Amino acid sequence: MPADAPTAAMLVIGDEILSGRTRDSNMHHLACALTAHGVPLAEVRVIGDTRAAIIDTVRELAGRYDHLFTSGGIGPTHDDITAEAVAAAFDTPIGVREDARAILAAHYEARGTELNAARLRMARIPDGATLIDNPVSAAPGFSLRNVHVMAGVPAVFEAMVASVLPRITGGAPLLSQQLTVHRGEGDIAGPLSDLSEDFADLSFGSYPFIRNGAFGVSIVVRGRDGARLDAAMSRLIGLFPPDAP
Amino acid sequence: MPADAPTAAMLVIGDEILSGRTRDSNMHHLACALTAHGVPLAEVRVIGDTRAAIIDTVRELAGRYDHLFTSGGIGPTHDDITAEAVAAAFDTPIGVREDARAILAAHYEARGTELNAARLRMARIPDGATLIDNPVSAAPGFSLRNVHVMAGVPAVFEAMVASVLPRITGGAPLLSQQLTVHRGEGDIAGPLSDLSEDFADLSFGSYPFIRNGAFGVSIVVRGRDGARLDAAMSRLIGLFPPDAP
Repeated sequence: MPADAPTAAMLVIGDEILSGRTRDSNMHHLACALTAHGVPLAEVRVIGDTRAAIIDTVRELAGRYDHLFTSGGIGPTHDDITAEAVAAAFDTPIGVREDARAILAAHYEARGTELNAARLRMARIPDGATLIDNPVSAAPGFSLRNVHVMAGVPAVFEAMVASVLPRITGGAPLLSQQLTVHRGEGDIAGPLSDLSEDFADLSFGSYPFIRNGAFGVSIVVRGRDGARLDAAMSRLIGLFPPDAP
Repeated sequence: MPADAPTAAMLVIGDEILSGRTRDSNMHHLACALTAHGVPLAEVRVIGDTRAAIIDTVRELAGRYDHLFTSGGIGPTHDDITAEAVAAAFDTPIGVREDARAILAAHYEARGTELNAARLRMARIPDGATLIDNPVSAAPGFSLRNVHVMAGVPAVFEAMVASVLPRITGGAPLLSQQLTVHRGEGDIAGPLSDLSEDFADLSFGSYPFIRNGAFGVSIVVRGRDGARLDAAMSRLIGLFPPDAP
């Protein structure tokens, strides 16, 4: 990775992920979106709905990476404590903000639904934060400094990622090319290691799979320079030619 | 959670997860298996194939939790550095161990495949570690102190989890009951918060969903005492009765 690419981390918040009740899909979605945007995802953490853990982790990851994206815990119920904890992590006051309240009021009025005290919690936004648009269910996320706080429901999370990414300056997208080799990983390991030394500016990954009872390996080469990728792929194909027809 | 339940963390190692190339499924599998075994999963981290990051994270999580489970990076290729990094985290020597070598030799001999230098890397086991059986592709995982090092390929990971869990003392399984309510989360938030105060020994989660364009909430109550769960569920059903037919 070039040193000048911005870096990102993700924090998934929710007891339901850790208990296995819910299968997280937001991590994979964000990983793909960030890779395409040129902001490599460097680390992900999953923690429960615990105030102290959220505060500590937000401070640590926001300090270490250029951007931190959070998922989960911004709904109307008692276990939705992410917004308040993120505000606390930066010693920032939080309260119902008029622009967020207006968004919720318009949304619920159009549906004949009461904007009660629980729903009004979703208008609590830390001072100085920028709202993240939620075209699915109105209640906004927010960006406070370099922390982007988003919902856990996948449809809402994905809509918020689409809202926030254009505001974030990306680097050159990380490119990748792949070669599938129907041999054991142990057969390709030696030559692949030598090749990776000749192309130290690229990263080489090998991912074994089992398909119809046979072993194979996907070799993936990643980098930001397309010409270098092409050169590495030519060498790879020479090392591991496709099966003759 | 009762204080006497053992705790666990998971460390997923692999650039391919962070780039979005591969969608991790091992976290969800382990979360479900640990919940059933009575060892709650308290935290998950995902990091890349970077030696220093693996060493630091293994030290931190192995120190904080009763068990640490790792996934990925124990194959034969140059980017498979997990075994060596885990050994380094505990300042433990690592080398080819005879019992692991014999397992690999038998496996490859039966298939007429050479046990070359790359494959022999998979017999490198830290001193004092216990092997974890791999009935899928032979190359073993290992447990070093409270760290259980397993493969990233899902079929192999799942087989290793099945091998290692019976060795780990679990607590009472975490029980859960669920009620689906076809109302907005904002309608149930207030009463649910009051109920959770009356049952402080249980945990209450509410998980909104969108199905056929309509909002609903799954309310999940978790705890280790079945009678208390039943009592809470009775109260819940009273608060949010099922729709009359």
